[in-house]
Amino acid sequence: MALLPFTSAKHCRLSCSLLCGFRQSPTLCRTGLPLPWSCHTAMPRRTLRATCSAADSAHKSSANSSGQQQQKKKQQQEKGQQPQGKQVGGKAGVTPKSEDFSRWFLDVVKFGELADYGPVRGTMVIRPWGYALWEALQQYLDQRFKETGHSNAYFPMLIPRSFVDKEASHVEGFAPELAIVTQGGGKELEEPLVIRPTSETIVNHMFSQWIQGYRDLPLMLNQWANVVRWELRTRPFLRTSEFLWQEGHCAFATAEEAEQEARNMLGIYCDFSTQMAAIPVVAGRKSAAESFAGAVSTYTIEAMMSDRRALQAGTSHNLGQNFAKAFDTTFLNQNGERQYVHQVSFGMSTRMIGGVIGVHGDDNGLQLPPQMAPVQIIFIPILKKGSDEAAVIGAVDRLAAAAKAAGIRTKVDADQSKSPGFRFNYWELKGVPLRVELGPRDVEQGLCILARRDRPGKEGKNSISMDEKAFVRDVQQALQDVQACMYEAALAFREANVVDVDSYDQLQSTIADGKWARGPWAGSSTDEKQIKDTTSATLRCIPFEQPEGLPRPCLLTGTSASEVAIFAKAY
Amino acid sequence: MALLPFTSAKHCRLSCSLLCGFRQSPTLCRTGLPLPWSCHTAMPRRTLRATCSAADSAHKSSANSSGQQQQKKKQQQEKGQQPQGKQVGGKAGVTPKSEDFSRWFLDVVKFGELADYGPVRGTMVIRPWGYALWEALQQYLDQRFKETGHSNAYFPMLIPRSFVDKEASHVEGFAPELAIVTQGGGKELEEPLVIRPTSETIVNHMFSQWIQGYRDLPLMLNQWANVVRWELRTRPFLRTSEFLWQEGHCAFATAEEAEQEARNMLGIYCDFSTQMAAIPVVAGRKSAAESFAGAVSTYTIEAMMSDRRALQAGTSHNLGQNFAKAFDTTFLNQNGERQYVHQVSFGMSTRMIGGVIGVHGDDNGLQLPPQMAPVQIIFIPILKKGSDEAAVIGAVDRLAAAAKAAGIRTKVDADQSKSPGFRFNYWELKGVPLRVELGPRDVEQGLCILARRDRPGKEGKNSISMDEKAFVRDVQQALQDVQACMYEAALAFREANVVDVDSYDQLQSTIADGKWARGPWAGSSTDEKQIKDTTSATLRCIPFEQPEGLPRPCLLTGTSASEVAIFAKAY
Repeated sequence: MALLPFTSAKHCRLSCSLLCGFRQSPTLCRTGLPLPWSCHTAMPRRTLRATCSAADSAHKSSANSSGQQQQKKKQQQEKGQQPQGKQVGGKAGVTPKSEDFSRWFLDVVKFGELADYGPVRGTMVIRPWGYALWEALQQYLDQRFKETGHSNAYFPMLIPRSFVDKEASHVEGFAPELAIVTQGGGKELEEPLVIRPTSETIVNHMFSQWIQGYRDLPLMLNQWANVVRWELRTRPFLRTSEFLWQEGHCAFATAEEAEQEARNMLGIYCDFSTQMAAIPVVAGRKSAAESFAGAVSTYTIEAMMSDRRALQAGTSHNLGQNFAKAFDTTFLNQNGERQYVHQVSFGMSTRMIGGVIGVHGDDNGLQLPPQMAPVQIIFIPILKKGSDEAAVIGAVDRLAAAAKAAGIRTKVDADQSKSPGFRFNYWELKGVPLRVELGPRDVEQGLCILARRDRPGKEGKNSISMDEKAFVRDVQQALQDVQACMYEAALAFREANVVDVDSYDQLQSTIADGKWARGPWAGSSTDEKQIKDTTSATLRCIPFEQPEGLPRPCLLTGTSASEVAIFAKAY
Repeated sequence: MALLPFTSAKHCRLSCSLLCGFRQSPTLCRTGLPLPWSCHTAMPRRTLRATCSAADSAHKSSANSSGQQQQKKKQQQEKGQQPQGKQVGGKAGVTPKSEDFSRWFLDVVKFGELADYGPVRGTMVIRPWGYALWEALQQYLDQRFKETGHSNAYFPMLIPRSFVDKEASHVEGFAPELAIVTQGGGKELEEPLVIRPTSETIVNHMFSQWIQGYRDLPLMLNQWANVVRWELRTRPFLRTSEFLWQEGHCAFATAEEAEQEARNMLGIYCDFSTQMAAIPVVAGRKSAAESFAGAVSTYTIEAMMSDRRALQAGTSHNLGQNFAKAFDTTFLNQNGERQYVHQVSFGMSTRMIGGVIGVHGDDNGLQLPPQMAPVQIIFIPILKKGSDEAAVIGAVDRLAAAAKAAGIRTKVDADQSKSPGFRFNYWELKGVPLRVELGPRDVEQGLCILARRDRPGKEGKNSISMDEKAFVRDVQQALQDVQACMYEAALAFREANVVDVDSYDQLQSTIADGKWARGPWAGSSTDEKQIKDTTSATLRCIPFEQPEGLPRPCLLTGTSASEVAIFAKAY
């Protein structure tokens, strides 16, 4: 569980004085806001950086690598002038979510130091706080995949262009998004290479060599990799030209095994989403129009972001024999007959981090589910002049050590050059689930304040015992509660925003209200397109869990529909 | 420590019957060799595959994606014919090392199922057994980097071409090896993009935005990533067009901190190499000619492969202010003066796996140091008709469970369709350090055979107690012994093949003998080039550990040399 090592208050102060020697009084950044974080001891040391510096780099990167503008700003700085640009305002500088969701999202990504823009359009630099969330996802999924019989492998990123053309619907789906390498080692290449947008083609090229007989099946692999899809509209985490993901690739002797695998892997994504990310999802089948290019069936989990748009958070694909036929991936069965294998692929990506931000964040910034949080509890010792500082620091160290020993990811922010309120805000912005406030009077009384990130103000504060055993028990309980409450809150929000509809009119007004519409569906891909063209909503999925009372008339065509589908605007 | 989950014999048989149902008598592969491995239960299930299937795919991939040839082979197969191509011969089909090292190396990679060729020239598919070694490296280094204050992050792979040009020696070094993307999303790009050959340029682009003042330093990041360098001559693991690595990138306020970091990180590489990979290395400084393009100083660890060529196994670079000046990466110091940061980068790659193969492997295949081995001990139950099979299987399960509980990576190969000898050979080829042989008579006597991979034949076999506690203790001791002996053997081999030289004649004859030459050196880059042109040997490093008795006359120029340097042919 422990993703990041523990730093005690003692270590913190030691590091500050030993490594940097910087224990200055609060300094004003050029944005006019005080620098909230000058302790250099974060372990990993640079995980945590100044909000102000983030705001700062927001200014800078809006110039996006323009050397001249940067130069100008540096000159201004040296002259003590304010740089041009919007002043960062509001608590932690985050645009209120209700005011502008898109802007709020970007602010949280930026000021929460999750990611920054790369120099190439649509690319993203994942900063340590964001990458730690990715590592939490990696750790969970990697273990689950291994437990279910998958091995990790690595396939080359560069794929001959001709491979992509081999599977007809695959090329149709991916050709518009390809990044193409035409030169290598100073020469024009004979055949252009694509940077993988996904790896089914190259995987099949290898599978067709590795698989000969039924003894070679099942073959169940996974890889952690980067992929490139040249996107027109990008947004950090949610849609970037390059992103990180895992892609599973499996071959089976029978259609039944493949179908089971596709559903099992979606089950693992469900588990991750609900148990780790505290995000309720609707699991279901994609329509033909929305399925993966080359798949027989695509299964998906769909999450509702807090602007009520749908986010496709993970997918698995029963590829049938489509790629096997394109790549001649065959095996001799027990009767000596040559057969095509049945294949499955599945993937979850850094997009999921976007889901965590967009589902749980609020006007104070990020809000992390305890299961994923790089730091689960932040200790803020509050020292007062003339009081017994050593007693406070000692108590914090003792409690932090006890929490760490119990496997809780713990951090102490003992930077006395920042006011307690400033430190509270900083760690709220970072989304840390629990905060312990501890001052001289608390030490005397043997009680400290435990504050929950998910409940603002006094409501989320409790006085708890400083007895180590009791403290750890209370913190563990609180972490469980926060995790459960975050899930429940997201679920209640979703439930309140899914509307059962029976007619196209109802669907239209539901979508216009920004909600999800769920109704009986027997339409065609053309019908789906009509809805998309008029409402901007897409068919998110046909849920596995179907209501009773079916068949009913299709909401659009009126013909008998044996299933309901969910329509929504989506990312 | 446990990289791969444990599979008990029971689980093995259960899985076979439940998942595949294939427990057939031995079948001949089309190469004429019996298929050595038909149990589908390897956990990860497909980690371990048929030697024969590997040999098989060796035949196939020599055709390298030629659909016609594959088609032909499949047709031949269906007709029961042998395909064209060299028959695999010798134990496990591996060319003797003494006969042809290069060929031996490729055979071990192929038959050991470590990697396979990708469809694009110079690329490699890392198969599960090879990837598990990479995961062992990742796990070790990642932890060490985090303990020393580094955080993981991720920088985009696509870099504007103009970035590479900004640092003069950097572009000179890397321009010939670049892969260039010129098209994206169906359009010609305005500015060509390079696939990162390394990330100093894009890192500096971001650092120049993130770093403003001394409070932002040190900034210590690492990323796990793929890079592309268009190489002319490639060889699996040792030199591939795309490879996996970690690259650390740090910025400091002072030159002293940067220098210390560069040396500390080399220290971590040393530790990995010696303690985990059981590979002795010479740590030292590169000459100017051999330094990283853009570095002030490059530090290296150099390993001796068993063909006595040198392998640069890991490097760290003190970049000074070179990139900082090119990218204007500056900070305001405590006196309000703008200064360039001092930078360090460091990397270790999948090449290290090539080192493990090339240093430790023998004519029977791979030989893995216990610290890195995905499976540390393989159990081979030997059943005899008419004997008490359940007793043998029960004993194996009991011992395997005890070993697993003690944190030992354990596997049972209970596939009775293969002879014990066949299974012995298979797991020797895979390099598993210890083997337990256990038959009915052993059960009666309460003793089993423990065989060491590093000591062939009877010499490496010991009869040990089947008492669980004693068994685990013996196995743990044996694992430690094997790890130490492998290191000692590699060290003795190197010591026997490094020759102290005082003259150019001696150097030439030493290099002609295939050995490393170590001698006093005060030559220039031009002098180095002369040696390279005449002997093919390069200056590997100026070792940190210098002998006594210096200065002495330079072996080439005769001028006073205060240091010795090592020259060798290298990968």
